Amino acid sequence: MDVKFKNLTKSASFKELASYPAPDIKDILSAERVSKCNIKTGIGLDYNYSAKPVDKKMLGIFQQVANEQQAVDKYKKVLYGAIMNPGENRMVLHHYTRGTLDVDHKKDVTKRINLYSKQIERFSAFAEKVHNGKIKGSTGAKFDTAVQIGIGGSDLGPRALYLALKGYMQTEGKKPLINCEFISNVDPDDASDVMSRINPETTLFIVVSKSGTTQETLTNTALVKSLIKSKSKSIDIAKHMIAVTGKGSPMENPLEFSNSFYIDDFIGGRYSGTSAVGGVILSLAFGSDIFKKVLAGAHANDKIALQQDILKNPPLLDALLSVYDRNILKTTTEAILPYSQALSRFPAHLQQLIMESNGKSANFKGKPINYETSPVVFGEPGTNGQHSFYQMLHQGTDIVPLKFIGFKESQQLCDVNFEESSCQKKLNANLAAQITAFALGQKDENPNKNFIGGRSSDILIGKKLTPEALGSLLAHFENRTMFQGFLWNINSFDQEGVQLGKKLANKILSAKSGDANMQENPVLDAYSALFT
Amino acid sequence: MDVKFKNLTKSASFKELASYPAPDIKDILSAERVSKCNIKTGIGLDYNYSAKPVDKKMLGIFQQVANEQQAVDKYKKVLYGAIMNPGENRMVLHHYTRGTLDVDHKKDVTKRINLYSKQIERFSAFAEKVHNGKIKGSTGAKFDTAVQIGIGGSDLGPRALYLALKGYMQTEGKKPLINCEFISNVDPDDASDVMSRINPETTLFIVVSKSGTTQETLTNTALVKSLIKSKSKSIDIAKHMIAVTGKGSPMENPLEFSNSFYIDDFIGGRYSGTSAVGGVILSLAFGSDIFKKVLAGAHANDKIALQQDILKNPPLLDALLSVYDRNILKTTTEAILPYSQALSRFPAHLQQLIMESNGKSANFKGKPINYETSPVVFGEPGTNGQHSFYQMLHQGTDIVPLKFIGFKESQQLCDVNFEESSCQKKLNANLAAQITAFALGQKDENPNKNFIGGRSSDILIGKKLTPEALGSLLAHFENRTMFQGFLWNINSFDQEGVQLGKKLANKILSAKSGDANMQENPVLDAYSALFT
Repeated sequence: MDVKFKNLTKSASFKELASYPAPDIKDILSAERVSKCNIKTGIGLDYNYSAKPVDKKMLGIFQQVANEQQAVDKYKKVLYGAIMNPGENRMVLHHYTRGTLDVDHKKDVTKRINLYSKQIERFSAFAEKVHNGKIKGSTGAKFDTAVQIGIGGSDLGPRALYLALKGYMQTEGKKPLINCEFISNVDPDDASDVMSRINPETTLFIVVSKSGTTQETLTNTALVKSLIKSKSKSIDIAKHMIAVTGKGSPMENPLEFSNSFYIDDFIGGRYSGTSAVGGVILSLAFGSDIFKKVLAGAHANDKIALQQDILKNPPLLDALLSVYDRNILKTTTEAILPYSQALSRFPAHLQQLIMESNGKSANFKGKPINYETSPVVFGEPGTNGQHSFYQMLHQGTDIVPLKFIGFKESQQLCDVNFEESSCQKKLNANLAAQITAFALGQKDENPNKNFIGGRSSDILIGKKLTPEALGSLLAHFENRTMFQGFLWNINSFDQEGVQLGKKLANKILSAKSGDANMQENPVLDAYSALFT
Repeated sequence: MDVKFKNLTKSASFKELASYPAPDIKDILSAERVSKCNIKTGIGLDYNYSAKPVDKKMLGIFQQVANEQQAVDKYKKVLYGAIMNPGENRMVLHHYTRGTLDVDHKKDVTKRINLYSKQIERFSAFAEKVHNGKIKGSTGAKFDTAVQIGIGGSDLGPRALYLALKGYMQTEGKKPLINCEFISNVDPDDASDVMSRINPETTLFIVVSKSGTTQETLTNTALVKSLIKSKSKSIDIAKHMIAVTGKGSPMENPLEFSNSFYIDDFIGGRYSGTSAVGGVILSLAFGSDIFKKVLAGAHANDKIALQQDILKNPPLLDALLSVYDRNILKTTTEAILPYSQALSRFPAHLQQLIMESNGKSANFKGKPINYETSPVVFGEPGTNGQHSFYQMLHQGTDIVPLKFIGFKESQQLCDVNFEESSCQKKLNANLAAQITAFALGQKDENPNKNFIGGRSSDILIGKKLTPEALGSLLAHFENRTMFQGFLWNINSFDQEGVQLGKKLANKILSAKSGDANMQENPVLDAYSALFT
């Protein structure tokens, strides 16, 4: 099927939506609505949109907007292997890291699906050998620690997933098989701090960079090597280093890395959590069986995302609701509020996923657009946030759409009753109370104690944060982000906005090493001088 | 001196500012401006506003706005001991936790200044006894770990300060005297995780709650006690527990806590980092001499904040620039971007400080206001953010004011040269490059590669993140937040917006324990049922 790329504001149904009077949540919210507006979005995960300002008629218009922008058809184009990242002239194939979908695709895609499966087999076998001691450190010690050196997509997603599952392993008294740490920032204090905690003899370093040229990652690798040498001269460093990189990158070097796993060119950094970028470290930490459950959860959401009916396709419905918030209600931010400590770094991952994918001012064809794209995304776990920035969310002068995440059960099954209820009950009572308070508010004659309400939210809700539910949660947001891009008619898969800063930083660094072949930039020099 | 409370939009000079054409940063930014627009804001810390859209004439109008809103006079009222938190009918005395200022004040204030000094003496002596082993655990083991149990202001500030100084201690090969952990979230997975890492026999728990009734903190204390009992029956738990609480609170109980330190009623949670709330744990971690250096740094900024001349008063100038961004340029967010891994949780503290203080819709007298107050505040350390949300900051459709923090030297003095420059040089080259790229942009005919520039920033810059510089940084933001409140004519010291959620959560929890004396709320019940 052929697809057309049309700006959102050219869509007739979007214009209809803009003139439709938004309902007040206070008028439409009811107990019945809470249980009715609930859709399965993967394995052990539902999407509940009862506290969003949308009625039945609007949902019909939403469906038309989705149809007009051909959201699901464009997703099928992605799966077919069309060049859906035109800025980089690339296909977009991350969905295939978690399984094959029953959609027509090119032969080249089939080839790559097989390559992805092979990588999973390779790193599963590698992790098993580390666990059973067949692969050891160079001094004969068993590995008990892995340190991932990477930045951006090679750090945020894997780190969020590792933290999310660490507690799950403790449920049955188990611990992670391998304890993991992460080094990302080029600030040398980051690596120093991690290195002060670990024993190099029992540590495996996973260096992750698709291009094999990421400045921070190469620099940190050099710093780590120098710290290992200063600590223990007898170590053969290459036996403690493995690479996750693009095939043929400068990092594919057996003299420096004892093993290499591959990221395909058609998997973007922020969408790479389910590739070797997340897979190697998660398999080392928890075993590949756990990682494969994450894949299964993500795959379930990828299938759901193929539904044309928005009421059966939560990532698409969620994208439509967010576009409504952003372009019609003119909100500028979005709060991600997981009521689960295990998801403490999940908002940081989503901040990258959403803002880097959709913080654009050019459309899919590279022309300027004149409407809002990605909001600012931020968040911290509840109940912590309640004692912090929720004051502004409740009584501030701007409306912030709220995205809650919650689970019926805690992960670690370690709890206590205090004043007649458990911690987990208190956690969820707070979550239910917050949704209600934001939506309904409470009148008070004293403006300082008045809550206007009408502050909308939705929630991703599961029984427990299992590996499957986590995979579904991750893919829900990835697919929602992709659908937002289709609705906004932008390319969610490139990131030209990061280039200028890199270029200027290199200018400073190479100027200092004597490269005169550069235009003068006195302002840049002046800022650089502030730090010397 | 008498002060008047007038809404910002009633100020004649604010109206003048609104009609003044904002200069384009691209036109005014020069190497000379970079070095000129730089003011000392404490010990080892400068404020540089060269990349903000402000010219000389505007600075004159800014001064008039500050004078009209009596910003410094209101600060003097705070110091005098006037009821500057009318919502709670309280004085606001946190400045006195770091020293006496040469400003007229009430007798009652003098009394309290003495009390604060006495607390510092008491917890300094206590920390010393823990360090030299005079105070030990109940089984005779020396304490090597402290766990702070608290939430909101009892967690975010102390945690950010602890992390900021941990690396500093490593500079000279030293380590923290006591290793610290934090438990905050009522999610039981938070406490479980921390407890799995520590040995109760060598751990001192610091339970922090001003009211002595904070639900999360009491619940976590109960959970921690139950976990200690299950691990080691021989421990006398009270000997491992100390309290930081209000005098006379339910927590002041020698049967449960072997020692108590006090927070005064006139020190708000989010402003309590320099009181016993931060002081006890920082003195345990690093020694009270280090904590006193933090106080000295904060005190230096408190003195600077007394200057009527905005060009000698960076927290006030910073507040004026932020109000200009928010109320005239209509920005809605603010990014805090420390180029220092040690400040990784500092943005989370500032998020509370700013959004909880100033996310209000009622003025100082309790009347509704019709202009914008606190923006959404978010941030992550650079260079990490560059590989994440900076895409949206550079090329997104909204302008986000940027607040950088940077230091010439790294904390831990552990570095390596790679490709002809050190990590620290690379870090700062990136920072200088980003400021320049955001301000000046770079034209490209391809809209996808075009950088419009004109995106303003300012920077707090120091030689090194020492305890003194950290104290100045903390106080700069506290004083800036207070001045924002004075400009906006709101009360920055109460938080009525957190009450409704608490009330509804308690309704759920008490309903379950059979309390029928409550209004029905079927929506609340329906959300609560989602989690059971």
